[in-house]
Amino acid sequence: MIDFNTIKVISFDADDTLWQNEKLFRQAEQNFCRLMRPYANKEKALKILWHAEVNNIPLYGYGIKAFILDMLEAGLKLSKNKLSAKETKQIISIGKKIIKSPIILFEGAENTLNKLSKRYKLIVTTKGDLLEQENKVYRSGLTKYLHHIEVMSEKDKKSYARLLKELNVKPQEFLMVGNSVKSDILPVLALGANAVFIPSKLTWFYENGNEKEIPSKNFLKLKDISQLLSLL
Amino acid sequence: MIDFNTIKVISFDADDTLWQNEKLFRQAEQNFCRLMRPYANKEKALKILWHAEVNNIPLYGYGIKAFILDMLEAGLKLSKNKLSAKETKQIISIGKKIIKSPIILFEGAENTLNKLSKRYKLIVTTKGDLLEQENKVYRSGLTKYLHHIEVMSEKDKKSYARLLKELNVKPQEFLMVGNSVKSDILPVLALGANAVFIPSKLTWFYENGNEKEIPSKNFLKLKDISQLLSLL
Repeated sequence: MIDFNTIKVISFDADDTLWQNEKLFRQAEQNFCRLMRPYANKEKALKILWHAEVNNIPLYGYGIKAFILDMLEAGLKLSKNKLSAKETKQIISIGKKIIKSPIILFEGAENTLNKLSKRYKLIVTTKGDLLEQENKVYRSGLTKYLHHIEVMSEKDKKSYARLLKELNVKPQEFLMVGNSVKSDILPVLALGANAVFIPSKLTWFYENGNEKEIPSKNFLKLKDISQLLSLL
Repeated sequence: MIDFNTIKVISFDADDTLWQNEKLFRQAEQNFCRLMRPYANKEKALKILWHAEVNNIPLYGYGIKAFILDMLEAGLKLSKNKLSAKETKQIISIGKKIIKSPIILFEGAENTLNKLSKRYKLIVTTKGDLLEQENKVYRSGLTKYLHHIEVMSEKDKKSYARLLKELNVKPQEFLMVGNSVKSDILPVLALGANAVFIPSKLTWFYENGNEKEIPSKNFLKLKDISQLLSLL
């Protein structure tokens, strides 16, 4: 459980906590698999793509540009280096489509941030590509409720510790709200801060931590973001 | 001229101020042009590549991943959509080579930061891809002299204003040192803060501001980074 009386700063994860994101990547994956049909079935295409994604994280990090380069690498591998220029072009288009997609906020997200912003300092804490994430927050229309946006290269204990220091808040004053056990919950609880887990229907396989690993102290699981309003 | 007595925080640009960077991109450009020989001469290849770079900034931002995608787009255009899988693979390799290149510090950079770190708060202010820039600072071995690293999506007046606010320093207490008139000098002077310009032999065409536009107040041009030690 969480002692909500001590909270001063509430930090929200962005993708799949405030708005749909994974769905766009899943659609892109489907388009990629369709494009790869001459070379491989869906199962194999996805396997090779996921392999490229995980392999390239140390080199490329997270975000859409990395995903495009991962699809190209997977496409070259699946086609045994026969990928045509047309297919290369189509892969780049699949990626650009994600960048250009409108931001679709989850129901209740704006109302929740609006109300909470009157009593707490709100921030967005996300990882990945700086320009990409800043653009998304800007396009979401939520900027007016936020104190600032923190984009991290990795959402680990070290990055959160630095954030708390910058914000000049104690762990018990900080609450993180997110959909990733690995990035939003475990590192925050490890610091002695608070975390609310709101699972989303779709989460990138790489972010799927084991829920059983979550200690119960300072932790709460909710169904949707609006439930925060009855607690805070 | 600059009143050095008021300075409390010194911020260094990273690429081509502390270490060689543009040289790697120029070498990559040469490799790209060589690869494009079946389709176009060097002049045309470079023109189409630069066009792709500038066009894609709003979509992709800065950094190596963006540069790889720009080369691919230029390659598709130059080859009239005949780019082979092998060429696609080679373009990706040209880009990956930049990521894996060792950091080559400019002469005097480490000594200068070491000495200045004893009397000033030092930071690195850079733009582009978060993971990429953090990795480079880490690999440079300079982290021990730095208070923190600030990666911005754009180095404009607004971003510097926010930085000064975060650092809780007045404009006259802040000094920016860099090689780009556009990103390191003009926006900083516009805030009433101080700027030292150290031109580098190679600067990306996009960063070439007009030196004549620089007001002389709070400004100084130096030949190399070590000269700071005789002033501060």
